[in-house]
Amino acid sequence: MKKIINAPEKALPEALEGFTTCHGHMVRYDAAARTVLRRERKKDGRVALVSGGGSGHEPMHIGYVGRGMLDAACTGQIFTSPTPDQMLAAADAVETGGGVIFIVKNYAGDIMNFEMAVEMHHGRAMIVITDDDVALENSMCASGQGNRGVAGTLVVEKIAGAAAERGYGIDRCVEIAQQTNAATGSMAVALSSCVVPAAGTPNFLLGEDEMELGVGIHGEAGRERIKARSADDLAELFVDSILERIGTAKDDPLLLMCNGLGGSPPIELYILYNSARKILTSRGYRVERSLIGTFCSALEMAGASITLTKLDMGLLNLWDDPVETPVLRWA
Amino acid sequence: MKKIINAPEKALPEALEGFTTCHGHMVRYDAAARTVLRRERKKDGRVALVSGGGSGHEPMHIGYVGRGMLDAACTGQIFTSPTPDQMLAAADAVETGGGVIFIVKNYAGDIMNFEMAVEMHHGRAMIVITDDDVALENSMCASGQGNRGVAGTLVVEKIAGAAAERGYGIDRCVEIAQQTNAATGSMAVALSSCVVPAAGTPNFLLGEDEMELGVGIHGEAGRERIKARSADDLAELFVDSILERIGTAKDDPLLLMCNGLGGSPPIELYILYNSARKILTSRGYRVERSLIGTFCSALEMAGASITLTKLDMGLLNLWDDPVETPVLRWA
Repeated sequence: MKKIINAPEKALPEALEGFTTCHGHMVRYDAAARTVLRRERKKDGRVALVSGGGSGHEPMHIGYVGRGMLDAACTGQIFTSPTPDQMLAAADAVETGGGVIFIVKNYAGDIMNFEMAVEMHHGRAMIVITDDDVALENSMCASGQGNRGVAGTLVVEKIAGAAAERGYGIDRCVEIAQQTNAATGSMAVALSSCVVPAAGTPNFLLGEDEMELGVGIHGEAGRERIKARSADDLAELFVDSILERIGTAKDDPLLLMCNGLGGSPPIELYILYNSARKILTSRGYRVERSLIGTFCSALEMAGASITLTKLDMGLLNLWDDPVETPVLRWA
Repeated sequence: MKKIINAPEKALPEALEGFTTCHGHMVRYDAAARTVLRRERKKDGRVALVSGGGSGHEPMHIGYVGRGMLDAACTGQIFTSPTPDQMLAAADAVETGGGVIFIVKNYAGDIMNFEMAVEMHHGRAMIVITDDDVALENSMCASGQGNRGVAGTLVVEKIAGAAAERGYGIDRCVEIAQQTNAATGSMAVALSSCVVPAAGTPNFLLGEDEMELGVGIHGEAGRERIKARSADDLAELFVDSILERIGTAKDDPLLLMCNGLGGSPPIELYILYNSARKILTSRGYRVERSLIGTFCSALEMAGASITLTKLDMGLLNLWDDPVETPVLRWA
């Protein structure tokens, strides 16, 4: 294991301290609750949004805390759920009377803990589960059902965050978040594995000419172990699989995101984005909004994912609303 | 070689097409000149800024084209200088009567070609050379003198871009750019090599427990091949070496940038940033501005660099001026 760290047990607290110090004008860090909070409290009566999950996927979710997106992100140990106590503390810290929505990626441990937090929370709290990974049916980590939640969670957080910022009520915000999740699909490929610092060894192995198609963001097995393929071939597989989930109507504007898994450089993400976009436009789809970058990583795993969201005009307007976070930022 | 590409010879044009399509509201792509241009022409009489260099360092320089920073970025083949013809076409495209400044990283090929472009250009054109890499004296690529230009070039481009946007004359803009370069130092470490697509094999080899201290952004040998060290040790080495260049006065506010080389994930960059920041503050320095991210890559090389700029109040204000590019964006 070769990483830029001090000691495995210090990696997470030091990373969080670095991140929150760098972005201290937007976020603050509650070290006791290992939670990143929006610096400025939301207006009274607005719905508060809390997300969280295992670490190792940076900048998800800590990079999305700020005006127009999340109010708090609870961080678990690497690839491990945060605890109900953390979630409860976060909800108490950000609640201003409009209720709290927990946005949770579909993993058994996360859901169990967030459900406990909902039960323990004194005010109104609801859960929205994201399950955008189309690689496998019932791909959910550990025991459980449905698809994994991956990079598309960012889109749900942005759009629900805009709805909350506008002052929509909790039921409407939940409905919009669920609609966004249903309109979103993602699929990834790994070119290398990753090493959890506390373990010290790769969590799977890939041959020099192999790729893991449909890999999960913790290195979970994907749909197939394949011989290395071209960006065009990968993009076509991704687009076809995602459109199966979100539907193939060509009237709705699409959001296209190309996400790096941590070890793949910008130039390769630009190429994969280009392949996906050309396939979509050649089939008559309209790519109206785009993101390229490392938004949901799997430690240092080389690889990338494609996410598509079918935006109707309502979702498109919410996407375009101002946002001011460490990673997404527009006026 | 395992990469997300189609064919080595198509990697660069496809990446540029993807990048410019994604960011089409800010930039446009002149495919014939392989140059990325600011979408909106600058006001008449303002100084125009053109940068460029070999590709493989994305998002440098294409990610810094836009309002308040560069007017054009010429892209060479991977790790190869663009040609004087490209630079001349870029200068002609963006010149609005205030003259053109070429910002050039200190590599022999780039300088030779940009100097030819200055000679061939009909209007007034000047060159600013960046040489922020403190790893080695006379580390310049190929034959030549002085230090390599690396990630700190971003700081020069931002501050000179703000000066040009304010309407400062060309001589003053050049002076500010040179002052910024002199106040900036950088140093990098590699944890892995990288593979130029057309070559297909790594351009150097590192053992499982080795790091290349002071590596160049094309994989040039650094100061020393070392056994793997902690983030704190690396940060201290970087900070000491950089302060030797930029001076150690504690009154000036510092800009601290932690830059990924392409294959290192956000979590490791946060840790290295944190180490550098703690060392600086423990010695009484004031870190007033910060950046963490992949700003100047070396293809998929794992590793990172630290850059420090000593900002006086004038440079700090220019840094804070609005900027609207694909990568740097604030109002």
